[in-house]
Amino acid sequence: MEEAPQRRGRGKPRDQNLRETILKAAAELLLEKGFKGFTIEEVAARSGASKVTIYRWLNTRGTLALDAYMYAVTDAFAFGQSESPRADIERQLAAVIEKLTRTAAGRAIMELIGGAQEDPQLKRELAARYIQPRRELAGAAFARLFGWDYSANKERLAAITDQVYGAIYNRLLFGLAPLDASFARELVDFWADRYSDGRR
Amino acid sequence: MEEAPQRRGRGKPRDQNLRETILKAAAELLLEKGFKGFTIEEVAARSGASKVTIYRWLNTRGTLALDAYMYAVTDAFAFGQSESPRADIERQLAAVIEKLTRTAAGRAIMELIGGAQEDPQLKRELAARYIQPRRELAGAAFARLFGWDYSANKERLAAITDQVYGAIYNRLLFGLAPLDASFARELVDFWADRYSDGRR
Repeated sequence: MEEAPQRRGRGKPRDQNLRETILKAAAELLLEKGFKGFTIEEVAARSGASKVTIYRWLNTRGTLALDAYMYAVTDAFAFGQSESPRADIERQLAAVIEKLTRTAAGRAIMELIGGAQEDPQLKRELAARYIQPRRELAGAAFARLFGWDYSANKERLAAITDQVYGAIYNRLLFGLAPLDASFARELVDFWADRYSDGRR
Repeated sequence: MEEAPQRRGRGKPRDQNLRETILKAAAELLLEKGFKGFTIEEVAARSGASKVTIYRWLNTRGTLALDAYMYAVTDAFAFGQSESPRADIERQLAAVIEKLTRTAAGRAIMELIGGAQEDPQLKRELAARYIQPRRELAGAAFARLFGWDYSANKERLAAITDQVYGAIYNRLLFGLAPLDASFARELVDFWADRYSDGRR
Protein backbone atom coordinates (compact mmCIF):
# COMPACT_ATOMS: atom_id res chain seq x y z
CA MET A 1 0.00 0.00 0.00
CA GLU A 2 1.42 3.38 -0.97
CA GLU A 3 1.67 6.01 1.72
CA ALA A 4 0.34 9.46 0.96
CA PRO A 5 3.12 12.09 1.29
CA GLN A 6 1.20 14.24 3.79
CA ARG A 7 0.79 11.19 6.02
CA ARG A 8 4.51 10.51 6.10
CA GLY A 9 5.05 14.19 6.92
CA ARG A 10 3.10 13.85 10.17
CA GLY A 11 5.30 11.24 11.83
CA LYS A 12 8.88 10.18 11.62
CA PRO A 13 9.53 7.99 8.55
CA ARG A 14 10.82 5.23 10.80
CA ASP A 15 7.54 5.23 12.73
CA GLN A 16 5.55 5.04 9.53
CA ASN A 17 7.57 2.06 8.35
CA LEU A 18 6.97 0.28 11.64
CA ARG A 19 3.25 1.05 11.46
CA GLU A 20 3.21 -0.38 7.94
CA THR A 21 5.03 -3.51 9.12
CA ILE A 22 2.55 -4.00 11.97
CA LEU A 23 -0.47 -3.49 9.73
CA LYS A 24 0.88 -5.90 7.13
CA ALA A 25 1.45 -8.60 9.76
CA ALA A 26 -1.95 -7.90 11.31
CA ALA A 27 -3.71 -8.14 7.93
CA GLU A 28 -2.03 -11.46 7.17
CA LEU A 29 -3.02 -12.86 10.55
CA LEU A 30 -6.62 -11.63 10.26
CA LEU A 31 -7.11 -13.16 6.83
CA GLU A 32 -5.42 -16.39 7.87
CA LYS A 33 -7.06 -16.97 11.25
CA GLY A 34 -10.16 -14.75 11.22
CA PHE A 35 -11.10 -12.31 13.99
CA LYS A 36 -11.55 -15.19 16.42
CA GLY A 37 -7.91 -16.22 16.08
CA PHE A 38 -6.64 -12.64 15.97
CA THR A 39 -4.45 -11.69 18.96
CA ILE A 40 -2.14 -8.77 19.69
CA GLU A 41 0.47 -11.30 20.89
CA GLU A 42 0.54 -12.99 17.50
CA VAL A 43 0.70 -9.64 15.65
CA ALA A 44 3.68 -8.73 17.87
CA ALA A 45 5.37 -12.05 17.14
CA ARG A 46 4.86 -11.77 13.38
CA SER A 47 5.81 -8.09 13.04
CA GLY A 48 8.72 -8.07 15.49
CA ALA A 49 7.15 -5.04 17.21
CA SER A 50 6.54 -5.02 20.95
CA LYS A 51 3.01 -5.21 22.33
CA VAL A 52 3.58 -1.79 23.92
CA THR A 53 4.33 -0.28 20.52
CA ILE A 54 1.26 -1.88 19.01
CA TYR A 55 -1.02 -0.63 21.77
CA ARG A 56 0.49 2.87 21.48
CA TRP A 57 -0.82 3.30 17.92
CA LEU A 58 -3.67 0.91 17.66
CA ASN A 59 -5.13 0.73 21.05
CA THR A 60 -7.41 -2.32 21.10
CA ARG A 61 -7.56 -5.70 19.45
CA GLY A 62 -10.74 -4.68 17.62
CA THR A 63 -9.26 -1.41 16.32
CA LEU A 64 -6.12 -3.16 15.14
CA ALA A 65 -8.20 -5.83 13.38
CA LEU A 66 -10.28 -3.11 11.69
CA ASP A 67 -7.19 -1.22 10.54
CA ALA A 68 -5.73 -4.50 9.31
CA TYR A 69 -8.92 -5.26 7.40
CA MET A 70 -8.86 -1.84 5.74
CA TYR A 71 -5.20 -2.27 4.92
CA ALA A 72 -6.09 -5.54 3.19
CA VAL A 73 -9.06 -4.29 1.14
CA THR A 74 -8.66 -0.54 0.51
CA ASP A 75 -6.94 -0.90 -2.86
CA ALA A 76 -9.44 -3.48 -4.11
CA PHE A 77 -12.37 -1.29 -2.96
CA ALA A 78 -11.15 1.89 -4.73
CA PHE A 79 -13.34 3.49 -7.43
CA GLY A 80 -11.88 3.93 -10.89
CA GLN A 81 -12.04 7.35 -12.50
CA SER A 82 -12.70 6.42 -16.12
CA GLU A 83 -14.99 8.32 -18.48
CA SER A 84 -17.84 6.03 -17.47
CA PRO A 85 -18.93 6.50 -13.83
CA ARG A 86 -21.42 3.70 -14.37
CA ALA A 87 -18.70 1.23 -15.36
CA ASP A 88 -16.50 2.47 -12.49
CA ILE A 89 -19.26 1.75 -9.96
CA GLU A 90 -20.15 -1.60 -11.48
CA ARG A 91 -16.50 -2.66 -11.37
CA GLN A 92 -16.18 -1.50 -7.77
CA LEU A 93 -19.30 -3.40 -6.65
CA ALA A 94 -18.12 -6.52 -8.46
CA ALA A 95 -14.70 -6.18 -6.78
CA VAL A 96 -16.29 -5.80 -3.34
CA ILE A 97 -18.50 -8.84 -3.92
CA GLU A 98 -15.57 -10.87 -5.26
CA LYS A 99 -13.42 -9.97 -2.25
CA LEU A 100 -16.20 -10.71 0.25
CA THR A 101 -17.34 -13.99 -1.28
CA ARG A 102 -14.12 -15.50 -2.63
CA THR A 103 -11.36 -14.44 -0.25
CA ALA A 104 -10.70 -14.62 3.48
CA ALA A 105 -11.67 -10.93 3.76
CA GLY A 106 -15.33 -11.99 3.75
CA ARG A 107 -15.04 -14.11 6.86
CA ALA A 108 -12.99 -11.39 8.55
CA ILE A 109 -15.57 -8.62 8.04
CA MET A 110 -18.47 -10.94 8.92
CA GLU A 111 -16.76 -11.76 12.21
CA LEU A 112 -15.94 -8.09 12.84
CA ILE A 113 -19.54 -7.04 12.19
CA GLY A 114 -20.72 -9.97 14.31
CA GLY A 115 -18.34 -9.11 17.15
CA ALA A 116 -19.36 -5.44 17.00
CA GLN A 117 -22.93 -6.40 17.94
CA GLU A 118 -21.76 -7.24 21.46
CA ASP A 119 -18.99 -4.64 21.66
CA PRO A 120 -20.19 -1.01 21.50
CA GLN A 121 -16.65 0.37 21.10
CA LEU A 122 -15.91 -1.94 18.17
CA LYS A 123 -19.23 -0.89 16.61
CA ARG A 124 -18.31 2.79 16.94
CA GLU A 125 -14.86 2.17 15.45
CA LEU A 126 -16.35 0.08 12.64
CA ALA A 127 -18.70 2.91 11.71
CA ALA A 128 -16.07 5.66 12.08
CA ARG A 129 -13.07 3.95 10.51
CA TYR A 130 -14.60 1.71 7.90
CA ILE A 131 -18.24 2.42 7.04
CA GLN A 132 -18.30 6.23 7.08
CA PRO A 133 -15.24 6.77 4.86
CA ARG A 134 -16.43 4.09 2.41
CA ARG A 135 -19.91 5.62 2.42
CA GLU A 136 -18.47 8.99 1.42
CA LEU A 137 -16.39 7.53 -1.40
CA ALA A 138 -19.41 5.64 -2.70
CA GLY A 139 -21.61 8.72 -2.37
CA ALA A 140 -19.12 10.74 -4.44
CA ALA A 141 -19.07 8.03 -7.12
CA PHE A 142 -22.87 7.96 -7.36
CA ALA A 143 -22.96 11.78 -7.39
CA ARG A 144 -20.70 11.63 -10.45
CA LEU A 145 -23.00 9.06 -12.07
CA PHE A 146 -26.09 11.19 -11.49
CA GLY A 147 -24.42 14.52 -12.23
CA TRP A 148 -25.30 15.70 -8.70
CA ASP A 149 -23.40 18.02 -6.40
CA TYR A 150 -22.15 15.75 -3.61
CA SER A 151 -22.41 18.17 -0.68
CA ALA A 152 -25.90 19.36 -1.62
CA ASN A 153 -27.17 15.76 -1.81
CA LYS A 154 -25.18 14.05 0.91
CA GLU A 155 -28.14 12.58 2.85
CA ARG A 156 -29.94 11.42 -0.27
CA LEU A 157 -26.75 9.81 -1.58
CA ALA A 158 -26.25 8.05 1.79
CA ALA A 159 -29.78 6.66 1.54
CA ILE A 160 -28.95 5.31 -1.93
CA THR A 161 -25.53 3.85 -1.14
CA ASP A 162 -26.81 2.36 2.13
CA GLN A 163 -29.35 0.48 0.02
CA VAL A 164 -26.77 -0.71 -2.52
CA TYR A 165 -24.12 -1.83 -0.03
CA GLY A 166 -26.80 -2.85 2.49
CA ALA A 167 -28.11 -5.37 -0.03
CA ILE A 168 -24.60 -6.74 -0.56
CA TYR A 169 -23.75 -6.98 3.15
CA ASN A 170 -27.11 -8.49 3.99
CA ARG A 171 -26.75 -11.20 1.37
CA LEU A 172 -23.31 -11.86 2.85
CA LEU A 173 -24.42 -11.82 6.50
CA PHE A 174 -27.48 -14.03 5.86
CA GLY A 175 -25.92 -16.26 3.20
CA LEU A 176 -28.41 -15.20 0.48
CA ALA A 177 -27.90 -15.65 -3.26
CA PRO A 178 -27.10 -14.54 -5.88
CA LEU A 179 -24.13 -12.49 -4.69
CA ASP A 180 -21.94 -12.18 -7.78
CA ALA A 181 -21.02 -9.89 -10.68
CA SER A 182 -24.55 -10.16 -12.12
CA PHE A 183 -25.91 -8.72 -8.88
CA ALA A 184 -23.41 -5.85 -9.12
CA ARG A 185 -24.76 -5.06 -12.58
CA GLU A 186 -28.38 -5.33 -11.44
CA LEU A 187 -27.74 -2.89 -8.57
CA VAL A 188 -26.11 -0.30 -10.81
CA ASP A 189 -28.85 -0.65 -13.41
CA PHE A 190 -31.59 0.21 -10.89
CA TRP A 191 -29.96 3.47 -9.93
CA ALA A 192 -28.43 4.50 -13.25
CA ASP A 193 -31.81 4.08 -14.93
CA ARG A 194 -33.47 6.02 -12.12
CA TYR A 195 -31.32 9.14 -12.05
CA SER A 196 -28.61 9.30 -14.66
CA ASP A 197 -30.76 10.19 -17.71
CA GLY A 198 -29.00 7.64 -19.89
CA ARG A 199 -25.58 8.86 -18.78
CA ARG A 200 -22.89 6.17 -19.08
CA MET B 1 -50.35 -14.89 18.26
CA GLU B 2 -53.17 -16.67 16.44
CA GLU B 3 -52.61 -20.22 15.29
CA ALA B 4 -53.51 -21.15 11.75
CA PRO B 5 -56.10 -23.94 11.71
CA GLN B 6 -54.04 -26.25 9.46
CA ARG B 7 -51.20 -25.93 11.94
CA ARG B 8 -53.31 -26.97 14.87
CA GLY B 9 -54.54 -29.92 12.77
CA ARG B 10 -51.04 -31.35 12.61
CA GLY B 11 -50.44 -31.79 16.34
CA LYS B 12 -52.59 -32.35 19.39
CA PRO B 13 -54.12 -29.11 20.70
CA ARG B 14 -52.43 -29.73 24.04
CA ASP B 15 -49.05 -29.82 22.27
CA GLN B 16 -49.80 -26.57 20.49
CA ASN B 17 -50.70 -24.88 23.75
CA LEU B 18 -47.47 -26.04 25.30
CA ARG B 19 -45.50 -24.85 22.29
CA GLU B 20 -47.18 -21.46 22.62
CA THR B 21 -46.35 -21.35 26.34
CA ILE B 22 -42.70 -22.16 25.63
CA LEU B 23 -42.42 -19.58 22.86
CA LYS B 24 -44.03 -16.89 25.00
CA ALA B 25 -41.59 -17.55 27.85
CA ALA B 26 -38.67 -17.70 25.42
CA ALA B 27 -39.65 -14.39 23.80
CA GLU B 28 -39.91 -12.67 27.18
CA LEU B 29 -36.50 -13.99 28.21
CA LEU B 30 -34.87 -13.01 24.90
CA LEU B 31 -36.19 -9.44 25.04
CA GLU B 32 -35.29 -9.11 28.71
CA LYS B 33 -31.79 -10.62 28.71
CA GLY B 34 -30.72 -10.57 25.05
CA PHE B 35 -29.29 -13.56 23.19
CA LYS B 36 -26.26 -13.59 25.50
CA GLY B 37 -28.40 -14.23 28.55
CA PHE B 38 -30.72 -16.63 26.74
CA THR B 39 -30.55 -20.22 28.03
CA ILE B 40 -32.72 -23.30 27.57
CA GLU B 41 -32.59 -23.82 31.35
CA GLU B 42 -34.18 -20.44 31.98
CA VAL B 43 -36.83 -21.00 29.29
CA ALA B 44 -37.66 -24.31 30.98
CA ALA B 45 -37.90 -22.64 34.38
CA ARG B 46 -40.13 -19.83 33.10
CA SER B 47 -42.44 -22.01 30.99
CA GLY B 48 -42.70 -24.95 33.31
CA ALA B 49 -41.78 -27.27 30.42
CA SER B 50 -38.96 -29.76 30.74
CA LYS B 51 -35.71 -29.25 28.85
CA VAL B 52 -36.39 -32.53 27.03
CA THR B 53 -39.72 -31.17 25.75
CA ILE B 54 -38.10 -27.95 24.62
CA TYR B 55 -35.34 -29.75 22.76
CA ARG B 56 -37.90 -32.07 21.11
CA TRP B 57 -39.56 -29.18 19.26
CA LEU B 58 -36.94 -26.53 19.10
CA ASN B 59 -33.69 -28.33 18.91
CA THR B 60 -30.99 -25.74 19.66
CA ARG B 61 -30.63 -22.62 21.72
CA GLY B 62 -30.20 -20.58 18.53
CA THR B 63 -33.31 -22.02 16.86
CA LEU B 64 -35.40 -21.43 19.96
CA ALA B 65 -34.14 -17.85 20.23
CA LEU B 66 -35.01 -17.27 16.55
CA ASP B 67 -38.49 -18.70 16.96
CA ALA B 68 -38.93 -16.60 20.08
CA TYR B 69 -37.83 -13.48 18.19
CA MET B 70 -40.31 -14.18 15.40
CA TYR B 71 -43.03 -14.83 17.95
CA ALA B 72 -42.28 -11.40 19.43
CA VAL B 73 -42.21 -9.38 16.19
CA THR B 74 -44.38 -11.15 13.59
CA ASP B 75 -47.56 -9.18 14.32
CA ALA B 76 -45.72 -5.84 14.35
CA PHE B 77 -43.97 -6.67 11.05
CA ALA B 78 -47.17 -7.61 9.16
CA PHE B 79 -48.16 -5.63 6.06
CA GLY B 80 -51.53 -3.91 6.03
CA GLN B 81 -53.88 -4.52 3.11
CA SER B 82 -55.41 -1.09 2.68
CA GLU B 83 -56.26 0.51 -0.64
CA SER B 84 -52.84 2.19 -0.63
CA PRO B 85 -49.96 -0.30 -1.00
CA ARG B 86 -47.60 2.62 -0.67
CA ALA B 87 -49.01 3.60 2.73
CA ASP B 88 -49.03 -0.07 3.79
CA ILE B 89 -45.32 -0.42 3.00
CA GLU B 90 -44.40 2.89 4.59
CA ARG B 91 -46.24 1.91 7.78
CA GLN B 92 -44.55 -1.50 7.81
CA LEU B 93 -41.07 -0.02 7.37
CA ALA B 94 -41.75 2.53 10.10
CA ALA B 95 -42.99 -0.26 12.40
CA VAL B 96 -39.87 -2.35 11.72
CA ILE B 97 -37.61 0.65 12.41
CA GLU B 98 -39.55 1.56 15.56
CA LYS B 99 -39.33 -2.01 16.87
CA LEU B 100 -35.62 -2.32 16.06
CA THR B 101 -34.56 1.06 17.43
CA ARG B 102 -36.91 1.58 20.38
CA THR B 103 -37.54 -1.86 21.86
CA ALA B 104 -35.47 -4.77 23.14
CA ALA B 105 -36.14 -6.61 19.85
CA GLY B 106 -33.37 -4.55 18.23
CA ARG B 107 -30.67 -5.78 20.57
CA ALA B 108 -31.98 -9.34 20.23
CA ILE B 109 -31.78 -9.43 16.43
CA MET B 110 -28.40 -7.64 16.40
CA GLU B 111 -27.02 -10.30 18.74
CA LEU B 112 -28.61 -13.10 16.71
CA ILE B 113 -27.15 -11.75 13.46
CA GLY B 114 -23.84 -11.24 15.25
CA GLY B 115 -23.85 -14.75 16.72
CA ALA B 116 -24.76 -16.24 13.34
CA GLN B 117 -21.48 -14.96 11.89
CA GLU B 118 -19.61 -17.55 13.95
CA ASP B 119 -22.29 -20.24 13.87
CA PRO B 120 -23.10 -21.62 10.41
CA GLN B 121 -26.18 -23.52 11.62
CA LEU B 122 -27.63 -20.40 13.24
CA LYS B 123 -26.94 -18.50 10.01
CA ARG B 124 -28.80 -21.11 7.96
CA GLU B 125 -31.73 -21.07 10.39
CA LEU B 126 -31.76 -17.26 10.43
CA ALA B 127 -32.01 -17.19 6.64
CA ALA B 128 -34.55 -20.03 6.39
CA ARG B 129 -36.83 -19.17 9.31
CA TYR B 130 -36.65 -15.40 9.46
CA ILE B 131 -35.17 -13.68 6.41
CA GLN B 132 -36.64 -15.77 3.57
CA PRO B 133 -40.26 -15.67 4.76
CA ARG B 134 -40.02 -11.93 5.49
CA ARG B 135 -38.39 -11.35 2.08
CA GLU B 136 -41.32 -13.06 0.36
CA LEU B 137 -43.91 -11.04 2.25
CA ALA B 138 -42.05 -7.83 1.43
CA GLY B 139 -41.65 -8.87 -2.22
CA ALA B 140 -45.42 -9.46 -2.46
CA ALA B 141 -46.12 -6.01 -0.94
CA PHE B 142 -43.80 -4.28 -3.42
CA ALA B 143 -45.30 -6.30 -6.29
CA ARG B 144 -48.68 -4.90 -5.28
CA LEU B 145 -47.24 -1.36 -5.19
CA PHE B 146 -45.73 -1.72 -8.67
CA GLY B 147 -48.63 -3.68 -10.16
CA TRP B 148 -46.24 -6.55 -10.95
CA ASP B 149 -46.88 -10.28 -10.96
CA TYR B 150 -44.95 -11.60 -7.96
CA SER B 151 -43.85 -14.96 -9.35
CA ALA B 152 -42.70 -13.53 -12.67
CA ASN B 153 -40.56 -10.87 -10.90
CA LYS B 154 -39.37 -12.74 -7.83
CA GLU B 155 -35.63 -12.17 -8.33
CA ARG B 156 -36.05 -8.52 -9.23
CA LEU B 157 -38.29 -7.96 -6.21
CA ALA B 158 -35.71 -9.67 -3.97
CA ALA B 159 -33.04 -7.29 -5.30
CA ILE B 160 -35.29 -4.35 -4.41
CA THR B 161 -36.39 -5.52 -0.96
CA ASP B 162 -32.83 -6.59 -0.08
CA GLN B 163 -31.83 -2.98 -0.76
CA VAL B 164 -34.65 -1.50 1.31
CA TYR B 165 -34.28 -3.78 4.34
CA GLY B 166 -30.52 -4.00 3.81
CA ALA B 167 -30.30 -0.24 4.33
CA ILE B 168 -32.34 -0.51 7.53
CA TYR B 169 -30.38 -3.45 8.95
CA ASN B 170 -27.07 -1.88 8.02
CA ARG B 171 -27.92 1.38 9.76
CA LEU B 172 -28.90 -0.73 12.76
CA LEU B 173 -25.82 -2.99 12.69
CA PHE B 174 -23.39 -0.09 12.20
CA GLY B 175 -25.23 2.46 14.34
CA LEU B 176 -25.82 4.88 11.44
CA ALA B 177 -28.39 7.68 11.38
CA PRO B 178 -31.06 8.64 10.59
CA LEU B 179 -33.03 5.48 11.27
CA ASP B 180 -36.57 6.69 11.89
CA ALA B 181 -39.98 7.19 10.26
CA SER B 182 -38.55 9.81 7.89
CA PHE B 183 -36.13 7.20 6.55
CA ALA B 184 -39.05 4.79 6.04
CA ARG B 185 -40.77 7.44 3.93
CA GLU B 186 -37.59 8.21 1.98
CA LEU B 187 -37.10 4.52 1.15
CA VAL B 188 -40.65 4.07 -0.12
CA ASP B 189 -40.44 7.28 -2.13
CA PHE B 190 -37.38 6.06 -4.06
CA TRP B 191 -39.14 2.92 -5.23
CA ALA B 192 -42.69 4.17 -5.60
CA ASP B 193 -41.48 7.02 -7.81
CA ARG B 194 -39.37 4.56 -9.79
CA TYR B 195 -41.93 1.92 -10.70
CA SER B 196 -45.44 2.66 -9.52
CA ASP B 197 -46.40 5.28 -12.15
CA GLY B 198 -47.88 7.55 -9.54
CA ARG B 199 -49.89 4.70 -7.98
CA ARG B 200 -50.70 5.32 -4.31
